[in-house]
Amino acid sequence: MTEIVKGLRLIEVSAFIAAPYAGLTLAEMGADVIRNDPVGGGLDYRRWPVTSNNRSLYWAGLNKGKRSIMLNIREAEGRELAHTLMTKPGPEAGIVLTNLPARGWLSYKELKAKRDDLIMLGITGNRDGSVALDYTVNAAAGFPLVTGPENHAGPVNHVMPMWDVVAGLSAVNGILVAERRRRETGDGQFIGLALADTAFSTLSHLGYISEVEINGDDRPGTGNQVYGTFGCDFATSDGRRVMITAFTPRHWQALQKATGTEDQISALGTELDLDLSKEEARWAARDQIVAILEPWFSGHTLDHARTALDGAGACWGPYQSFTQAVREDSRVSTENPMFEEIAQPGIGRHLAAGPMLDFSAAPRTPVVPAPLLGGNTDEILAGDLGLSDGEIGRLHDAGIVEGATA
Amino acid sequence: MTEIVKGLRLIEVSAFIAAPYAGLTLAEMGADVIRNDPVGGGLDYRRWPVTSNNRSLYWAGLNKGKRSIMLNIREAEGRELAHTLMTKPGPEAGIVLTNLPARGWLSYKELKAKRDDLIMLGITGNRDGSVALDYTVNAAAGFPLVTGPENHAGPVNHVMPMWDVVAGLSAVNGILVAERRRRETGDGQFIGLALADTAFSTLSHLGYISEVEINGDDRPGTGNQVYGTFGCDFATSDGRRVMITAFTPRHWQALQKATGTEDQISALGTELDLDLSKEEARWAARDQIVAILEPWFSGHTLDHARTALDGAGACWGPYQSFTQAVREDSRVSTENPMFEEIAQPGIGRHLAAGPMLDFSAAPRTPVVPAPLLGGNTDEILAGDLGLSDGEIGRLHDAGIVEGATA
Repeated sequence: MTEIVKGLRLIEVSAFIAAPYAGLTLAEMGADVIRNDPVGGGLDYRRWPVTSNNRSLYWAGLNKGKRSIMLNIREAEGRELAHTLMTKPGPEAGIVLTNLPARGWLSYKELKAKRDDLIMLGITGNRDGSVALDYTVNAAAGFPLVTGPENHAGPVNHVMPMWDVVAGLSAVNGILVAERRRRETGDGQFIGLALADTAFSTLSHLGYISEVEINGDDRPGTGNQVYGTFGCDFATSDGRRVMITAFTPRHWQALQKATGTEDQISALGTELDLDLSKEEARWAARDQIVAILEPWFSGHTLDHARTALDGAGACWGPYQSFTQAVREDSRVSTENPMFEEIAQPGIGRHLAAGPMLDFSAAPRTPVVPAPLLGGNTDEILAGDLGLSDGEIGRLHDAGIVEGATA
Repeated sequence: MTEIVKGLRLIEVSAFIAAPYAGLTLAEMGADVIRNDPVGGGLDYRRWPVTSNNRSLYWAGLNKGKRSIMLNIREAEGRELAHTLMTKPGPEAGIVLTNLPARGWLSYKELKAKRDDLIMLGITGNRDGSVALDYTVNAAAGFPLVTGPENHAGPVNHVMPMWDVVAGLSAVNGILVAERRRRETGDGQFIGLALADTAFSTLSHLGYISEVEINGDDRPGTGNQVYGTFGCDFATSDGRRVMITAFTPRHWQALQKATGTEDQISALGTELDLDLSKEEARWAARDQIVAILEPWFSGHTLDHARTALDGAGACWGPYQSFTQAVREDSRVSTENPMFEEIAQPGIGRHLAAGPMLDFSAAPRTPVVPAPLLGGNTDEILAGDLGLSDGEIGRLHDAGIVEGATA
């Protein structure tokens, strides 16, 4: 972690990925992020993958460095405690992050009545409040129909829920700029973010929408080749695969040098009357370029290819399974300062990442495991809300709060 | 756009996606983002897709709302002008964003000598400075080997360069928190971000790494089914496809109601002795559930399915090509306040997205098209650097600066 935003304090009411990822990102940078958990845990508390004792590795991964209070918000007193936490005074407090419906007890209006300068960020599926998830958004955004082998009919879904991650990071941006504005003007605000809009705005930013409107084109699937340049996968002699790219003249030269194909590529350029130093020419000649390169890759092991490609300065990467990434890649190990081994309560010791950003003026501090569900209930009631032991005991007895059971 | 960070001012030296996406995100929120462009444009200036007159729709999409100065940084005087812009005084200035190598004329040390509290964010491929691109990072991260049809051998690349977008949004976070810190302490800093670490940290956050280490599992490919819950695609009678998810009990009920399969599902639960209200049970019984649902989808049109699914409150989405998204989906139209039609110089009128975030205290302002390359050269030399007409003329004559040619 790091302490660059130490002092910042927010309450997270969340499930699944987008809001937890946002809270995690802020917690990693030093914010005090309190999960307001329902009794027994939220919808994602047992989300797969789980351990043999039914602990969610997913939930633990997304909640590192946070605290958890378990409140029974079906009771008025539980809702009241949640509101008091959310609207507690302090220039760096009064921030609420949620991807649950921001209505009823989670209504911005109701919370703003208790703290006028509240900042609240609410993530919905669609802008109109209707439901959408990463996988349904991705289906609508066009990518599955152009993903997968070129001869494959039908959509290919992504595995990595990227729009959730985009929404999470964008939510952090929203909170940070709203807090910046509050420091300037004293005003809070509600920030809305629709998961669907993360995908549709990206379609605009990467030129997919203007391609349809200006060029009248629907970009076709191109298999594993990267559109408009040279990028392709190759099998090696030992059954591995590599992804090779040559977007720039420098990487194109390096690729030829590593594979000793300069003469053949030069002859191909002459034959086709194409200047292959330009990426659109490489795209036009991609099948012939693949045919020239393929024998070199299929005739060498991954290790041999690695030495040659790295030596020449080519831009490439091996394909790795998750296990290979964890077992073989030093970038996924404590050799990478981003990683550390943590002891996750109820789960055990494993590698865990701190922030992806390196701040020269804010050194890394230890990665903090995820809390147990309700693991900070009493500490928050006493320390943050100033309740006495007697009051805390009464809340437990009345079923308004719960602590961790394991 | 919006003006929530109006006053913030940064210089972008970039190519391809990550840094331009970061600059775009800040420009959308009102920052003055000046692209420091090389004469003739950078490596991505003609990146596909391009129009019939060879204008890059990609470059235009990623540079909306920015200004562009074209400087010949091969000349000492060009580098000097770039440095002056980057280190210009002002509490909200002195911010540099790059995904080019931060050395030589772009060295943080050299720039810090000219403005001690400079904030500079540098994106590299790998942490050690070696090259990596989105597609090579994704290959190493494990996802391509579990993407695609279940019977498909070999990797399936993603089409959407998600790690670039993740890096771009994370870079915005980095700049915002560093600027927050500078306001508190007066100190600037260098922030490093490796593209590879965006993927590897996400593997940690979503439980992929602990799954390998704790469970000893390498998650298998599951085709278009969503792991550990119910999510699957279906064909409709009119040749369309839909993505259906039922992560939550509510969506699971809604799906059964919409398709009139309550009795069959209930009988299936009894037969398998599974409580299908739990997502792990739906995952275990996924093939049988698909078999029950399939006839309903293949017997109805997309429009019929839409009415039934929306009516019941199911969580689903149609698959759409990029063209279908643009032509048929009101979320990708000016009915969505995020979108607006802009007139992009050299390209024409098309739909373009403003910020994905809605700030209640910072209304949307018009989306500003991308600049022409060097389209703001003279205005920046005069307005930002205070040069006289005579000096500007001399810089043009000496080949130190260039303006837009079209």
